[in-house]
Amino acid sequence: MIKIFKKALFTIAVILIFNTVKAQDSLMLRNIYDNALVRGEAYENLRHLCKNIGPRLSGSANAQKAVDWGKKLMESYGFDKVYLQECMVPHWVRGEKEVGKIINGKTEINVPICALGMSPATPKNGLKAKIIEVKSLEELASLGESLVKGKIVFFNRPFDQRFIETGRAYGAAGDQRFKGPAEAAKYGAVGVIVRSLSSTLDDYPHTGTTIFPEGSKKIPAAAISTKAANQLSNLLRLKKLPEIQFYFKQNCQLLPDVKSYNVVGEITGTEKPNEFITVGGHLDSWDLAEGAHDDGTGVVQGVEVLRIYKSLGLKPKHAIRAVMFMNEENGGRGGEKYTELAQKNKEIHIAAIESDGGGFTPRGFSFQDVTQKGIIKINEDWKHLFTPYLGDLLTIGGSGSDIEPLSVYKDAVLIGFRADSQRYFDIHHTPNDVFENVNKRELELGAASMASLVYLIDNYGITH
Amino acid sequence: MIKIFKKALFTIAVILIFNTVKAQDSLMLRNIYDNALVRGEAYENLRHLCKNIGPRLSGSANAQKAVDWGKKLMESYGFDKVYLQECMVPHWVRGEKEVGKIINGKTEINVPICALGMSPATPKNGLKAKIIEVKSLEELASLGESLVKGKIVFFNRPFDQRFIETGRAYGAAGDQRFKGPAEAAKYGAVGVIVRSLSSTLDDYPHTGTTIFPEGSKKIPAAAISTKAANQLSNLLRLKKLPEIQFYFKQNCQLLPDVKSYNVVGEITGTEKPNEFITVGGHLDSWDLAEGAHDDGTGVVQGVEVLRIYKSLGLKPKHAIRAVMFMNEENGGRGGEKYTELAQKNKEIHIAAIESDGGGFTPRGFSFQDVTQKGIIKINEDWKHLFTPYLGDLLTIGGSGSDIEPLSVYKDAVLIGFRADSQRYFDIHHTPNDVFENVNKRELELGAASMASLVYLIDNYGITH
Repeated sequence: MIKIFKKALFTIAVILIFNTVKAQDSLMLRNIYDNALVRGEAYENLRHLCKNIGPRLSGSANAQKAVDWGKKLMESYGFDKVYLQECMVPHWVRGEKEVGKIINGKTEINVPICALGMSPATPKNGLKAKIIEVKSLEELASLGESLVKGKIVFFNRPFDQRFIETGRAYGAAGDQRFKGPAEAAKYGAVGVIVRSLSSTLDDYPHTGTTIFPEGSKKIPAAAISTKAANQLSNLLRLKKLPEIQFYFKQNCQLLPDVKSYNVVGEITGTEKPNEFITVGGHLDSWDLAEGAHDDGTGVVQGVEVLRIYKSLGLKPKHAIRAVMFMNEENGGRGGEKYTELAQKNKEIHIAAIESDGGGFTPRGFSFQDVTQKGIIKINEDWKHLFTPYLGDLLTIGGSGSDIEPLSVYKDAVLIGFRADSQRYFDIHHTPNDVFENVNKRELELGAASMASLVYLIDNYGITH
Repeated sequence: MIKIFKKALFTIAVILIFNTVKAQDSLMLRNIYDNALVRGEAYENLRHLCKNIGPRLSGSANAQKAVDWGKKLMESYGFDKVYLQECMVPHWVRGEKEVGKIINGKTEINVPICALGMSPATPKNGLKAKIIEVKSLEELASLGESLVKGKIVFFNRPFDQRFIETGRAYGAAGDQRFKGPAEAAKYGAVGVIVRSLSSTLDDYPHTGTTIFPEGSKKIPAAAISTKAANQLSNLLRLKKLPEIQFYFKQNCQLLPDVKSYNVVGEITGTEKPNEFITVGGHLDSWDLAEGAHDDGTGVVQGVEVLRIYKSLGLKPKHAIRAVMFMNEENGGRGGEKYTELAQKNKEIHIAAIESDGGGFTPRGFSFQDVTQKGIIKINEDWKHLFTPYLGDLLTIGGSGSDIEPLSVYKDAVLIGFRADSQRYFDIHHTPNDVFENVNKRELELGAASMASLVYLIDNYGITH
């Protein structure tokens, strides 16, 4: 009898503790979301970054303005530490507006193109050559030097629209832009035109970096709008190959590296000040756009996480850092520097969250290098807390390229913020990536979900 | 031994059948989504409706053009039956652009307003009176006739941003527009100004209907932009009441009812041709906008469901109907007529799905009048099929006002298509509700999810 009574008491105690913790967490998440939605400042911060600074390609004067703004902003919030991390970045400049033409016998058709980041210029008066269409790197290789030499290679594999998440379509088409130019050069191509990596059919060429590995031959490479790509492809199909030529002119150049910075803000940890949870995005953007979704939203969401902590009077156990990474777009030097300094300073990193998929409605998070057991545990513990906010997809997956170098920390869990992906590649790397295309509530909900995950990791830790 | 063997065989057979059905369903949903994403026509149909027809308020010439277009479109797809359902609709017209002014002593401040649908006009030269701010119908009642008589009542309760789904914020603020004018008239108010029902702070007044129940006194009522509402509220707070007046002029009028139509397309059921699954949205829109998200998207998604059926060569067991309902915005006559004719024709209705929350990323469906047991069964059976498409929220909730009258059918399950709600009330009932604000993939994913649910209901039925 007594035994049973004791057991019953114990059971009640356990249930009570369990319920109390759960109730507190639910309430805290509600506070975080309310704060972001009612007193959020991310949207106005983004407005300033987009409208008062604008495009901020690595090495540009605007990138430096963005650094200064970022530091001042975080200082104005009174974070415990705000500082810069120096890093050298590439300084690629686009130069004059590019010219592209399909030459069909005596007919010249102007088409919208833009140089790919890190591409060399064409000769001063432009480059004219026969153009040959391929759908893949494999097809290029199968054609070989005999068919490719002296020609412009036109990579024209479109997005596969069947992917539900557009990031996967980007991933599946991306090798054409990333590797296409360097590969085509191997077979003697004189230039490369790449179909824009986009979900839509429109008149905007989408810029983005191309990679020439050290020692490889560099040839001029440009993106063409998806509509013009279809037009070119149709002409190539109708006409005999010798008749269609392509002309393009661009005078972009790669200048010497420039000194730049990551911007770091920190709230000191009350219990483990040398253990870090990082949150943020990248401060640089392409030169054609305001870099609103890519990645102004990630930058202001990172800051917003710390602002919410301060606003709610939350004292984290671990140090929480908002980082504005420099040079994600064409080099990744800021991300590398961040990890380099972390190791040098003997910091311990337990988790990092990157938001670099746009400031759209949050759907959840993807966890990198987490085991099947780990993701089950994460879902068991936390999924229900995110369900009321309609962003509870907690899956194994990639994180973000700025935090990727932190994978040298075997115990760090790297996390990608997952936003609804449908609209991202309509505007990605185009002049349409502007503040007006960001929705205030979607941005705020994302910041709240990131703050919530930071809160849970800070209090409960996270296992692989 | 033989007994055991038999049992084992039976078990295997059951498992095989179960697995086969599941695999077939998964494959069929994949086919449906692929078809919508790769060969979808909803987006181009919407473009035509928005750009070649445009605003189509009930009773207008454009509404008739939309009816003609809808019928032709469905005929062009070769659906088994395409026909119109006649119904009489209200014919309210806005007249000249409205004028609104805050009068602060000798200063007059122009503010953006628009007449609420079904509102009467002001006197020809406008209406000027003292203005009194309230936050709710309850506050209005507490002020009573002594404080309200002869004044303009200003309803100024904003959206509660803490709601995660904006439809709930709309619901919580909506009584001001729906009931406010008729209630204020009871206390002797001479006019009503309502804060726009919107998630944003901007310069657009949002129109929408107000309801004067039969026999109630009608007074002029207009919506004011959220920014101007804040400006007016601040002035009222700073100044003594007698000093602030409001002036507005509108010459809208309610003309005699006009003959109009629902447009219906149907694929005949192979097994139960008199049992119906209805899918669609409303064809009428407000006069200020193209009615893209409200509700062009619902209309073209309904048609797309039937087009996908034809394209995949699917033969439904039950009859499947795409309905373009008329007059959802200011009367609901089309929805009433649809049910009236269904009963008259002794049709049996097993389910109806309405899309009237915008053509945004699909999140799931809400099921009306379904029991707790029913929703658990729906989730057990079908949730996993929608999970790969990131739209698997299957919950108890409202359906849509056009299909609502079908609730006379006790066995019909009425269903609301749930789209991501964050952007809807930014543009709802404003000139910003245009085709350009609809994303092609989001629209197509919605159509695919509706077709998928129709497929599942057609094959498995659905219980309350």
